[in-house]
Amino acid sequence: MPQQSPLDVPEGDPFGPHNLPYGVFSTPQDTTRRRIGVRLGGHVIDAGAVARALGSPYADVLSAPTLNPLLGAGRTTWHDVRRALTAWVTDPGHRAAVEPHAYALADVTLHLPYEVADYVDFYASEHHATNVGRIFRPDGDALTPNWKHLPIGYHGRSGTIVVSGTDVVRPCGQRKAPADPAPVFGPSVKLDIEAEVGFVVGTPSALGEPVALGDFREHVFGLFLLNDWSARDIQAWEYVPLGPFLGKSFATSVSAWVTPLEALDAARVAPPARDFPLLPYLDDSAEDIEDGGFDLRITVSINGQEVAHPPFASMYWTAAQQLAHMTVNGASLRTGDVYGSGTVSGPEVNQRGSLLELTWNGRDAIELAEGKRTFLEDGDEVTLTAWAPGPDGIRVGLGDVTGRIVAAR
Amino acid sequence: MPQQSPLDVPEGDPFGPHNLPYGVFSTPQDTTRRRIGVRLGGHVIDAGAVARALGSPYADVLSAPTLNPLLGAGRTTWHDVRRALTAWVTDPGHRAAVEPHAYALADVTLHLPYEVADYVDFYASEHHATNVGRIFRPDGDALTPNWKHLPIGYHGRSGTIVVSGTDVVRPCGQRKAPADPAPVFGPSVKLDIEAEVGFVVGTPSALGEPVALGDFREHVFGLFLLNDWSARDIQAWEYVPLGPFLGKSFATSVSAWVTPLEALDAARVAPPARDFPLLPYLDDSAEDIEDGGFDLRITVSINGQEVAHPPFASMYWTAAQQLAHMTVNGASLRTGDVYGSGTVSGPEVNQRGSLLELTWNGRDAIELAEGKRTFLEDGDEVTLTAWAPGPDGIRVGLGDVTGRIVAAR
Repeated sequence: MPQQSPLDVPEGDPFGPHNLPYGVFSTPQDTTRRRIGVRLGGHVIDAGAVARALGSPYADVLSAPTLNPLLGAGRTTWHDVRRALTAWVTDPGHRAAVEPHAYALADVTLHLPYEVADYVDFYASEHHATNVGRIFRPDGDALTPNWKHLPIGYHGRSGTIVVSGTDVVRPCGQRKAPADPAPVFGPSVKLDIEAEVGFVVGTPSALGEPVALGDFREHVFGLFLLNDWSARDIQAWEYVPLGPFLGKSFATSVSAWVTPLEALDAARVAPPARDFPLLPYLDDSAEDIEDGGFDLRITVSINGQEVAHPPFASMYWTAAQQLAHMTVNGASLRTGDVYGSGTVSGPEVNQRGSLLELTWNGRDAIELAEGKRTFLEDGDEVTLTAWAPGPDGIRVGLGDVTGRIVAAR
Repeated sequence: MPQQSPLDVPEGDPFGPHNLPYGVFSTPQDTTRRRIGVRLGGHVIDAGAVARALGSPYADVLSAPTLNPLLGAGRTTWHDVRRALTAWVTDPGHRAAVEPHAYALADVTLHLPYEVADYVDFYASEHHATNVGRIFRPDGDALTPNWKHLPIGYHGRSGTIVVSGTDVVRPCGQRKAPADPAPVFGPSVKLDIEAEVGFVVGTPSALGEPVALGDFREHVFGLFLLNDWSARDIQAWEYVPLGPFLGKSFATSVSAWVTPLEALDAARVAPPARDFPLLPYLDDSAEDIEDGGFDLRITVSINGQEVAHPPFASMYWTAAQQLAHMTVNGASLRTGDVYGSGTVSGPEVNQRGSLLELTWNGRDAIELAEGKRTFLEDGDEVTLTAWAPGPDGIRVGLGDVTGRIVAAR
């Protein structure tokens, strides 16, 4: 039987040539050199090596150790590089040049694909925000009065964004139950996940200059799955009045693969109907604004068992609105800025993107093969996967994001 | 009359050889080359050029275009470099080598001296937090229940930290007075300052490993004045439940000069007595923990007129406690991490570090030569200055931080 080419991807593979997400990898033979890789099926192609072999004008930008130079090169380059990559992996004439630079995914190490500049996390699911409001503020309105007028967000810690596969050390911190006379210190007993979608900025913007809703594609390069690990007990005690801090800052896991926006053109959907008229800078109802939603179907698994299926299409606020809001005060963007959608939760119980919601703050345990879970136990491994509708009915796979909890130190 | 040497600083000058803050500058003759400068009186000395001329082992670290390599070199190097600099500017034998590399401050351009990694802002003045609580939550307790148990903080936007002298564009955004039926959009009408002290991290720490209270000097290189510009109307509408976002993220101004901690040894003071016992990781009452406060006397001026004198010694939480808290969950530090103390306000009315407090949210205007002020008007220039007690009764000057408001775009 002839050896199969790494370029022969089975028809319908969610990581076929219609997808081509970007990552950064190294090989066991050359552990210190980081290279830009493009995923094709079960392989990663050394994009810089192929570009150099073919004399591509993009050899420099694809030979960097991170995606940042490509991100900073702008939308025209993103489009042209993607077109070139598509040709390299589909045109039989390129096969001899490409094949030597394909590595089996199992044989490489994947790294954080970009240097993160600022990190902002939003709170854009109405279902999630309503659930959290009911749990944390049972005596008040579930949604705060501002919630449907602006996409609520806050800055997170960019230095603790880690690539999928990185272990997460259970954080220690202060917590205080209402009945406790004083706060106590120790490992979090309510360690949770938040299933989110992250976006990475390519093209920067100038200080003092807002980015318009319609310029989303000029600035945002692509998206990826993101798990915003959260220690609910630490968060509950600290977050009034200035928001989450140590309950979130210990780790945020992102996929090793960034899916370019162009791969998701068939997944664009209109966001839900808005309950209030939006101020003009957020109003995406105009004809010339493209649909801001993405029909991403997420699955949350713990130790390999599926526990939830959050639908990203149900998000009230879109990534384009978040970008416009984040910059409307003149805050500038940098290449490598990352922002998270906020926890993705749908209207159904099994569509909730956090254990806080799935177990109603620990009241209703979920059953796993290993036993009941309210929050995460040491050794638990959480994986987010997702796919979206692609061209010709083929799915577009998103790179997964996984992390295992290790005991507090 | 013989020309005076730039090394002859008048006795008692707050920027004498006992101080030696670090900055980054360029000259009109060579605008693109950024150099590390050390301030001496009214001059800045090209530290890299002197180090090269003298064959110093620190020539590399001092020839970088930012302070980051020096920051990352660690405490022993910080000490040794400072000792070398002191010798260069005081030893007559070095005079001929140093003088050619001194530039009048008025002739150079000062730049942001470090690349900022993460930015965290705290809320550590009891007087400030009490005032804000009374203004924003008049029906509740002024301080939230957690305030005296942990240093409240949140992440800010590191990409919009700007060096002193940078104009600040008045931000636009949503605001909604309680009586308004819906939010309105426009330039902030409550643009404010926050007089703070910032700290910059040199030595990084590992993910998952807290930094102990006693290790403050191992990680923090120095401090500087910081103005956390704040749009109170934007902030008031957005900040529940996840904290300040656009009300702060449009600009944060920092001094061009970083004062090394060693220059402030004589300014160390004990923090105020604590009202509650602190958890061990924050308890600085042990014998072997040095005094965590700094006796910095800050002055806030608007258009050259002094409006407040916030005393940094009155801060409830110290910078060492803030560092220990920020990392107790295992969050790692990076070289270039910056954190702000929070607004410095003392117990007296004229010691308040924000217009929010000085005018009690606009109720009591202050009088300037240009007219009354509740919040900042376009064209207003705000300057923070400070000094601290130094050795032998000589003051240690902190580099000022200034910024002028320009009209919204």
